Amino acid sequence: MSDRLSINHYSIRQWRLPELVEGCQKNGIKSIGVWRDKINAVGLEKARQLLQESGIAVSSLCRGGFFPYSSDQERTNTIADNQRAVDEAAALGSPLLVLVCGGMASAGLDCSREMVREGIAGLTPYAQARGVKLGIEPLHPMFIANRSVIATLEQANALADHFPADTVGVVIDAYHVWWDPNLYREIARAGSRIFAVHVSDWLVPPPDFLNGRGLMGDGCIEFGKFITAVNGAGYKGPIEVEIFNEQLWSLPGDEALSLIKKRFAEFVH
Amino acid sequence: MSDRLSINHYSIRQWRLPELVEGCQKNGIKSIGVWRDKINAVGLEKARQLLQESGIAVSSLCRGGFFPYSSDQERTNTIADNQRAVDEAAALGSPLLVLVCGGMASAGLDCSREMVREGIAGLTPYAQARGVKLGIEPLHPMFIANRSVIATLEQANALADHFPADTVGVVIDAYHVWWDPNLYREIARAGSRIFAVHVSDWLVPPPDFLNGRGLMGDGCIEFGKFITAVNGAGYKGPIEVEIFNEQLWSLPGDEALSLIKKRFAEFVH
Repeated sequence: MSDRLSINHYSIRQWRLPELVEGCQKNGIKSIGVWRDKINAVGLEKARQLLQESGIAVSSLCRGGFFPYSSDQERTNTIADNQRAVDEAAALGSPLLVLVCGGMASAGLDCSREMVREGIAGLTPYAQARGVKLGIEPLHPMFIANRSVIATLEQANALADHFPADTVGVVIDAYHVWWDPNLYREIARAGSRIFAVHVSDWLVPPPDFLNGRGLMGDGCIEFGKFITAVNGAGYKGPIEVEIFNEQLWSLPGDEALSLIKKRFAEFVH
Repeated sequence: MSDRLSINHYSIRQWRLPELVEGCQKNGIKSIGVWRDKINAVGLEKARQLLQESGIAVSSLCRGGFFPYSSDQERTNTIADNQRAVDEAAALGSPLLVLVCGGMASAGLDCSREMVREGIAGLTPYAQARGVKLGIEPLHPMFIANRSVIATLEQANALADHFPADTVGVVIDAYHVWWDPNLYREIARAGSRIFAVHVSDWLVPPPDFLNGRGLMGDGCIEFGKFITAVNGAGYKGPIEVEIFNEQLWSLPGDEALSLIKKRFAEFVH
């Protein structure tokens, strides 16, 4: 199982990319999830070389999306930015661009959801031509106004169904979906469209909803059941640990990494 | 429309019951939603008299529920407490007891949901015999660990379907359900089982998730669409304003009440 551990860069945000790569090499971790801001801080070409030489795989690039717009200019900028994100994923050898679809635009909730569909429709051929998959990540319903109008796996699955199954799928993050009474039905339905799986725990109550995610075992998510379900749906890829947590970020990176590794071994199977 | 305005006591928590009743009389408000702690602070019999003499109707009593348990003792206490809540509703002439079903018990999410079903099954004949309806209120998914394992209207409807339609129904609070892609389908499905409707707004982002609800018009909820849907489903009862907001609580009660009245007239139709 531990071979499936992938470290999302934002779990150890205190590190720059070279430190993360080195830390993962030392700890036998085989893949990482990277973020555009952290890549850009190093430079795309340098990041590409570093990753290639390290032998560490990229499980995903975070993030594209934010499709709903309130002006034509915003729409144009978003299209260009998403194409750049696909280009970056291709350059880095990331098989996947994670889509955080974006919150409500001034036109309202239904229109915003339609803008997401249109945005993905526009991006799909561009991504397909470059061999990059697009993963729709439903975010917790508390983020619907400002981060993602796509709030359930049912919704993400229905959206993905409009597009080619080899290019558009879903990213299932336990933190965002664990509460959902339809979760297990929808994991089974997603099947081969599960492009990535993320884990972090739900603290009771969360000290902060955005940056108060917990280390696995500190909260109440039933990971055993969750992992069994994604495995049962046929998912064999990496399990990415993505924890936004101020306390974890305040630790030396090495300590944060070994905590994550330990908790992953203990709880994620 | 303004005849449908009901003030939930917790919107003006700075007032005791006598002040709330007086404030509502002055402002021509015809009904209020009461809370057990505020009733008990005055005494049940005195509260009953006060309400009866005032001519103000009680739209609901908050709250019963919290069914999931981690010990037999806890289960026994919960049953007794819910029966007391039904008795109080009957004494006050409240047609409805609102059920906040309770968060996860140590047995996990599925078991906790089953405990809610059992709890309602046990309470239903008791409530029916006393002429009190039970309203299952789905809470926002961010409260699932500590307040309600019932998180969507779909789930509340499915749960209510197990019980007699004249006694068990749902309470639809815009703040808790507005994000749900299946909301309008489920409002239509609920139909005559809609026992109460609550409103408050979702601020972007909420300053606090529990006590940072907004006055209607300060957030992003599309009330026009929401009210049209509950009306379309056949609901003709009061619209209860239930705002948990530290800022509103810091105002003199009269000011809070006139703000609520103004915003209700402006946004809730």
